[in-house]
Amino acid sequence: MPIPAPDQENLPAAVTIWEVGARDGLQNEQETVPVEVKIEFLRRLADAGLGVLEATSFVHPKWVPQLADATDLLDRLERAPGVRYPVLVPNERGFDRALEAGVAEIAIFASATESFSRRNLNRGLDEQFAMFDPVVRRAVDEGLSVRGYLSMCFGDPWEGPVPAEQVVAVGARLLEMGCDQLSLGDTIGVATPGQVEVLLGGFTAAGIGVDRLAVHFHDTYGQALANTYAALRLGVSTIDSSAGGLGGCPYAKSATGNLATEDLVWMLDGLGIRHGVDLAALVDTSVWMAGQLGRPSPSGVVRALGGAS
Amino acid sequence: MPIPAPDQENLPAAVTIWEVGARDGLQNEQETVPVEVKIEFLRRLADAGLGVLEATSFVHPKWVPQLADATDLLDRLERAPGVRYPVLVPNERGFDRALEAGVAEIAIFASATESFSRRNLNRGLDEQFAMFDPVVRRAVDEGLSVRGYLSMCFGDPWEGPVPAEQVVAVGARLLEMGCDQLSLGDTIGVATPGQVEVLLGGFTAAGIGVDRLAVHFHDTYGQALANTYAALRLGVSTIDSSAGGLGGCPYAKSATGNLATEDLVWMLDGLGIRHGVDLAALVDTSVWMAGQLGRPSPSGVVRALGGAS
Repeated sequence: MPIPAPDQENLPAAVTIWEVGARDGLQNEQETVPVEVKIEFLRRLADAGLGVLEATSFVHPKWVPQLADATDLLDRLERAPGVRYPVLVPNERGFDRALEAGVAEIAIFASATESFSRRNLNRGLDEQFAMFDPVVRRAVDEGLSVRGYLSMCFGDPWEGPVPAEQVVAVGARLLEMGCDQLSLGDTIGVATPGQVEVLLGGFTAAGIGVDRLAVHFHDTYGQALANTYAALRLGVSTIDSSAGGLGGCPYAKSATGNLATEDLVWMLDGLGIRHGVDLAALVDTSVWMAGQLGRPSPSGVVRALGGAS
Repeated sequence: MPIPAPDQENLPAAVTIWEVGARDGLQNEQETVPVEVKIEFLRRLADAGLGVLEATSFVHPKWVPQLADATDLLDRLERAPGVRYPVLVPNERGFDRALEAGVAEIAIFASATESFSRRNLNRGLDEQFAMFDPVVRRAVDEGLSVRGYLSMCFGDPWEGPVPAEQVVAVGARLLEMGCDQLSLGDTIGVATPGQVEVLLGGFTAAGIGVDRLAVHFHDTYGQALANTYAALRLGVSTIDSSAGGLGGCPYAKSATGNLATEDLVWMLDGLGIRHGVDLAALVDTSVWMAGQLGRPSPSGVVRALGGAS
């Protein structure tokens, strides 16, 4: 009997995986990870076929001591051909350091909510733009591309559910300011697929196409991959994830981290969506990294294929 | 700005959660769980609002020693009003024992593949029906309802991907035989959402409506909730899950288990789908059960809300 093809007309044919393991994945680690380990991690990720590796952050070492080695790391990092190494830049001082390190791409980190903006950036929702504006302007002048992270897009620990209209308004402002792409973050991992559809629909209604959007899910409540599937169905083709599911949000109650790149790759393979990653090499990398950090990966695929259960 | 409603026209308004924690969740536990603990587990699950509790299995104790107490458990179990307590029945001998225990609903466990049928049932794909036929016939004569589990519906550890046509053919035969419902199992957790859509489309094309289908996903590769979302979108309204994500398949490489009921409930809440479960009471139950078993729950929601991280 003929099996009808599934309703997948909006699924992208290929996606860009924006690998955040070295930055978002490591930034909350308590024990300092040696710069040599980070460099080896990035080298292995590139060897596994990942084409975008967020390498580090130029945030002040006082706030994220784990990434205090950003300059040293970029000095010593041997770039793989064709691989992009964006870095997070919180403000103009960080931008100066990033420029000195010769980066070609930066990302800024904005908040979709008043409460998180005050707590994370020490200024209000509207005032955050004054901080980003000179950074984005100078980056554009220098010919760098700029990603705008938008955090707390679905729920906020102090405010609860975040209205999609508010997220779209903040996101639109970041794009108008000169960002090339928005990464919509579920920073505390509370979103569900219907919310993802509402938010993406809100951007579409505002004339902002999915080609300018990425999604960034955390797996705190086990929802990250279901949310990713909802986003893929609506045509989103840049997905943030972290090798082995490394990372976590200090504002979430649990230690669970980012969507695991391996679990994402498994789903993409099943959906016939190209991604360029060698899954076995990536699993090996995460098993190796789990050994460096001294704890097992939370990724299902790493546990199942890595022999580390 | 108006946010368009998401494309959710096929999402069910309410679902039946078929809680399998006490049977599928416990059957592979190595240490014997005392019958008193199982009874308390079932009592707590009913108190948390779950309406269908698969209680045990009348498989031969030699094969599943953990459930050797099936008769004792049902003798001592105080049924909560309005709650259903189906039991698994592998063959006529098991059916006799289930009848003696006064059950109102049974489930049989069939295989969608030749290899798993031979290994699990010790007979071929076609020959398994001869084993089920008298059980289903007698159950129907006694006025019992019968669920047909169909295992290895997506992938089989020996055969690889399983053709949807084959699954539909075996499933149709179980329904013709007298089963009221099929539970489509991803026994080794390899499925992805597109496969789910293909298989459900195959049943639809064969004239078998989603009202006669349930889905049963394992989270071995982290895909269970994404697959569930795909099934919900196509109108499936009976979802199997296990409190705290208890359980695992001895044929899968990893110890990861069934879809966690808590993670399912979180998604259903976000989607506005009714389910009748008190999430806090359920999380408390899973935290308590984790204490009984001596290991933490793999459920994201239990980790995040249960204070057990």
